[in-house]
Amino acid sequence: MSEQANRTEISSLGEFKLIEQLTKNFELRNASSLKGIGDDAAVIDNSNKLTVVTTDMLVEGIHFDMMYSPLLHLGYKCIAVNVSDLLAMNAEPKQVTVSIAISNRYSVEAIEELYEGIYHACEYYGVDLIGGDTTSSLKGLIISVTAIGEANEDEIVYRTGAKDGDLICVSGDLGGAFLGLQLLEREKKIFLENPGIQPDLENKKHIVGRFLKPEARKDIVDAMRAQSIVPTAMIDISDGLSSEILHICNQSNCGAIIYENEIPIHPESYDQALIFNMDPTVCALNGGEDYELLFTIDPKHATAIAQIPNVSVIGKIVPQANGTFLKTKNDNLFKIQAQGWESFKQEN
Amino acid sequence: MSEQANRTEISSLGEFKLIEQLTKNFELRNASSLKGIGDDAAVIDNSNKLTVVTTDMLVEGIHFDMMYSPLLHLGYKCIAVNVSDLLAMNAEPKQVTVSIAISNRYSVEAIEELYEGIYHACEYYGVDLIGGDTTSSLKGLIISVTAIGEANEDEIVYRTGAKDGDLICVSGDLGGAFLGLQLLEREKKIFLENPGIQPDLENKKHIVGRFLKPEARKDIVDAMRAQSIVPTAMIDISDGLSSEILHICNQSNCGAIIYENEIPIHPESYDQALIFNMDPTVCALNGGEDYELLFTIDPKHATAIAQIPNVSVIGKIVPQANGTFLKTKNDNLFKIQAQGWESFKQEN
Repeated sequence: MSEQANRTEISSLGEFKLIEQLTKNFELRNASSLKGIGDDAAVIDNSNKLTVVTTDMLVEGIHFDMMYSPLLHLGYKCIAVNVSDLLAMNAEPKQVTVSIAISNRYSVEAIEELYEGIYHACEYYGVDLIGGDTTSSLKGLIISVTAIGEANEDEIVYRTGAKDGDLICVSGDLGGAFLGLQLLEREKKIFLENPGIQPDLENKKHIVGRFLKPEARKDIVDAMRAQSIVPTAMIDISDGLSSEILHICNQSNCGAIIYENEIPIHPESYDQALIFNMDPTVCALNGGEDYELLFTIDPKHATAIAQIPNVSVIGKIVPQANGTFLKTKNDNLFKIQAQGWESFKQEN
Repeated sequence: MSEQANRTEISSLGEFKLIEQLTKNFELRNASSLKGIGDDAAVIDNSNKLTVVTTDMLVEGIHFDMMYSPLLHLGYKCIAVNVSDLLAMNAEPKQVTVSIAISNRYSVEAIEELYEGIYHACEYYGVDLIGGDTTSSLKGLIISVTAIGEANEDEIVYRTGAKDGDLICVSGDLGGAFLGLQLLEREKKIFLENPGIQPDLENKKHIVGRFLKPEARKDIVDAMRAQSIVPTAMIDISDGLSSEILHICNQSNCGAIIYENEIPIHPESYDQALIFNMDPTVCALNGGEDYELLFTIDPKHATAIAQIPNVSVIGKIVPQANGTFLKTKNDNLFKIQAQGWESFKQEN
């Protein structure tokens, strides 16, 4: 973790003063946020829209490592990954609550850095911090975020609506976050074995950034709305393309065919996979945490979707009986299986 | 923690199967819960009502001790304390999300016991489990709950509306949870020093229950609604009466006078305080986690409030310049100061 010259102990402030200090710069931007921090609960006015709610927990040592996760980025990421879930419902993100459990290893300044990242993310995505909880932990930092959005009933996109013939689309590029994490883990190992060696992350900005500071694809959702495209099904890629396309197929009762040579892979990801002796396609299929959007659209939108930058059409929905397959560059068919990240580790 | 003959490792199930197993018995009861678990986010239809949101985090070793906290009660409590916050806004609890981080010390059976408690609480308070996150922790169990309710705009009660002359009321009795915890801590210490000695909790059911399985006072909020009483300010007692009355006074720009002999203390709490050489009134003022409601009402409701069981009028609101005081049984005045529980401890 980032150590600072000025170190204020959290215990010297107490819970109420800490919350005050952390949240003093957060103003409410959305008219729907009637009451934010400072009462038993927050109050939201969604008038005639539906309320969309998601929640995610990030645990030190499981989801992030303070050796290479700057708190500023971590704060940003914990908001982005929740906003991503709302966007995957085609909802407009509006509010977040942030609860943290922190050990006394963290100073007030460290937690302020975390909240600076949270602030930037709230500003960028246009969401209000309306509540949370701050407590101590016996070990490490745990962050729990709940994000709340709104949408009209006919705008909401579930995982259930994909239909035979729909185009399968994905935003951005895949596998980068996974490869960035592998790289950070390798450099950490080298550093621990020989603290004199500086980490070599030159020309790796893309993949390292993909892991440390992912963006939720509000730009894609906004662009589709501008083009009047409502996906038939949508999900964000947190566990990997394989796992997510299977969720859509299972919940929509359909099959899918994904074309290997259409899967978007950044050159830096491609090169890094080869350096690690890994197949770039496998990294794109099974590497998680890219937080790109995977969605299906009616083929009538084929021309319109081509106008939107950073969207690739990577396959199509087929009848359920056909199954879910990857068609390789050599025209072989491989059955797609879920191999998402397994987060259940052993207690030390 | 409760060890069982049948122990299934969480890692043997994986995250998706675990969630499926834990949530299979939860059905959606509220018409407003359009979509629960199973997509990127849940969807709520509050039609023309406001949405009220609160969140709380419970951390093993800080908020509970597996030596004496049955998982069934813990599950119930984590819902009750969040529901309590919604009730303190005079809102109707409708949905909850539950996120847990668990170490591999916990078996699937143990987590099922936790969810059984969550289930009972959801059933009792009429709320739907609509989402959450399940991940591993490096140490212990962390539970983060977000509760969502609804209310008409003119029903919502903030901490800000107390006015000079208002009656100060409290539900139930105070200090019991604090004394129950002290007792459990004492028995734990004795047990650790001499495992042969069985804990002596005879005739202590009230105070032990107050700590282990608090109830949110939905009955009081419902009874007031039936009598058309809308409090001018309300808060739930999580940090202690002193701390909470000061919140109301600070946020309502008023003072208060609390009459010591009107503070409701259960005989069991009273006796236990004396056994511990503590002042029962101090326990009631500064002991937290009773989750009773503290509220102020217009004096015109004096007769109506007297009809509601388990409500005590303990004081009145005075002008801010008068300050916030306790009037003792001997007619002395003591300035009330916040001495809530301090939850920031040292990392081991």
